Amino acid sequence: MAVRALVFDVFGTLVDWRGSIIREGERWKKSHGMAVDWPKFADEWRAGYGPAMNLVRTGKLPWQSIDSLHRRILDELLEKYRVSGLSEEDKRHLNRVWHRLYPWPDAVAGLTRLKRKYVIATLSNGNLSLLVNMAKFAGLPWDAVLSAELFRHYKPDPEVYRGAALILDVAPAECMMVAAHKNDLDAAARAGLPAAFVARPLERGPGVKSQAELAPESRFNYNAVDFLDLAGKLGC
Amino acid sequence: MAVRALVFDVFGTLVDWRGSIIREGERWKKSHGMAVDWPKFADEWRAGYGPAMNLVRTGKLPWQSIDSLHRRILDELLEKYRVSGLSEEDKRHLNRVWHRLYPWPDAVAGLTRLKRKYVIATLSNGNLSLLVNMAKFAGLPWDAVLSAELFRHYKPDPEVYRGAALILDVAPAECMMVAAHKNDLDAAARAGLPAAFVARPLERGPGVKSQAELAPESRFNYNAVDFLDLAGKLGC
Repeated sequence: MAVRALVFDVFGTLVDWRGSIIREGERWKKSHGMAVDWPKFADEWRAGYGPAMNLVRTGKLPWQSIDSLHRRILDELLEKYRVSGLSEEDKRHLNRVWHRLYPWPDAVAGLTRLKRKYVIATLSNGNLSLLVNMAKFAGLPWDAVLSAELFRHYKPDPEVYRGAALILDVAPAECMMVAAHKNDLDAAARAGLPAAFVARPLERGPGVKSQAELAPESRFNYNAVDFLDLAGKLGC
Repeated sequence: MAVRALVFDVFGTLVDWRGSIIREGERWKKSHGMAVDWPKFADEWRAGYGPAMNLVRTGKLPWQSIDSLHRRILDELLEKYRVSGLSEEDKRHLNRVWHRLYPWPDAVAGLTRLKRKYVIATLSNGNLSLLVNMAKFAGLPWDAVLSAELFRHYKPDPEVYRGAALILDVAPAECMMVAAHKNDLDAAARAGLPAAFVARPLERGPGVKSQAELAPESRFNYNAVDFLDLAGKLGC
């Protein structure tokens, strides 16, 4: 079956969450005197996300959006880093830095090429409004914004991958998952979707990802070094 | 509360379903000898949609997509008009003429202006894949494609309007419904959404809509003659 739709992981695959948070953090340092170690702060914020999401996936927390999970973690970090003096409005705005992430340099050009031939959609654990705001901020040319929120399941639950194909009215085998994370791709493949790996060596900072995380894998349908490479390999 | 998002009715408000079906029908006449009265065929196809949808809304039919309801009506019409010789593939393709509708001449330019200031999204009874295909076909610059399908309720059920605001993470009062049909706007208003009326005098052909259907109403927040007029009134 020919692939007709491409669904994309977002955090790390499409946008540079770490670099973007550090960049905005430098401005919070000036405007609010928030002189934390921003690379460390960003890393800890992101590190809290998997465990928080698993509390939802295992039913220990009721369904809630990533905005809400990000805020839980942020409140803990503000305490840990002894940041005081932020108003509720400041905290709300800071929490939404995840709506203001910059794409990797090849992302917009790559998506624009891929869009000519395929339906292109997000398939992220980020809530829909976060993804919509990010698309406006970063100029991402989606055909559709799909989120785990629509299916009330977080990746890597199979409901998310199968739900995306169903709502796009294509067979799972026609709906390829694109991600920089092998566990996401393996879960998609178990749900019947083809998988395309895009290496993102700088996601967690230079030199942090292991060779095992970055190496191409013969079990994936495609392996690419960025979205332009993927577009070329898909004939776009 | 200031409006932050605009959600749009699609069939009739944004796209000229009647003119588009007649235009494609003329091609079916040549390619498949389907010499029906295409304006009448289009009108009857559309006329079947409300009653079919109401069978779903009242629980007499299980949930199904507009693609599926359009196909039910098409099969009846093909029999009524004694059209034979279409393959299953032909029928599937003909049914998807609803994915290939042309926008009113002001629609793309108007949306492009409105998008600078607002989140713009569909809010149609059309299924999500129909709306995604239509956006690609017609070059519609949506920030998000929202469909009644996401809420498993058809307009004018309040769940659809409230669901759209919720998933865009805005209050109903911040989420304005834009439509050419007053019943859609009145239902949105009952659900707490502001309402903008756009007159579409040619939707059912010239001279068919009554003055009552086309007149501005003081109960709506805005009344416009097209999307460019609406963009101007909203300061875009």
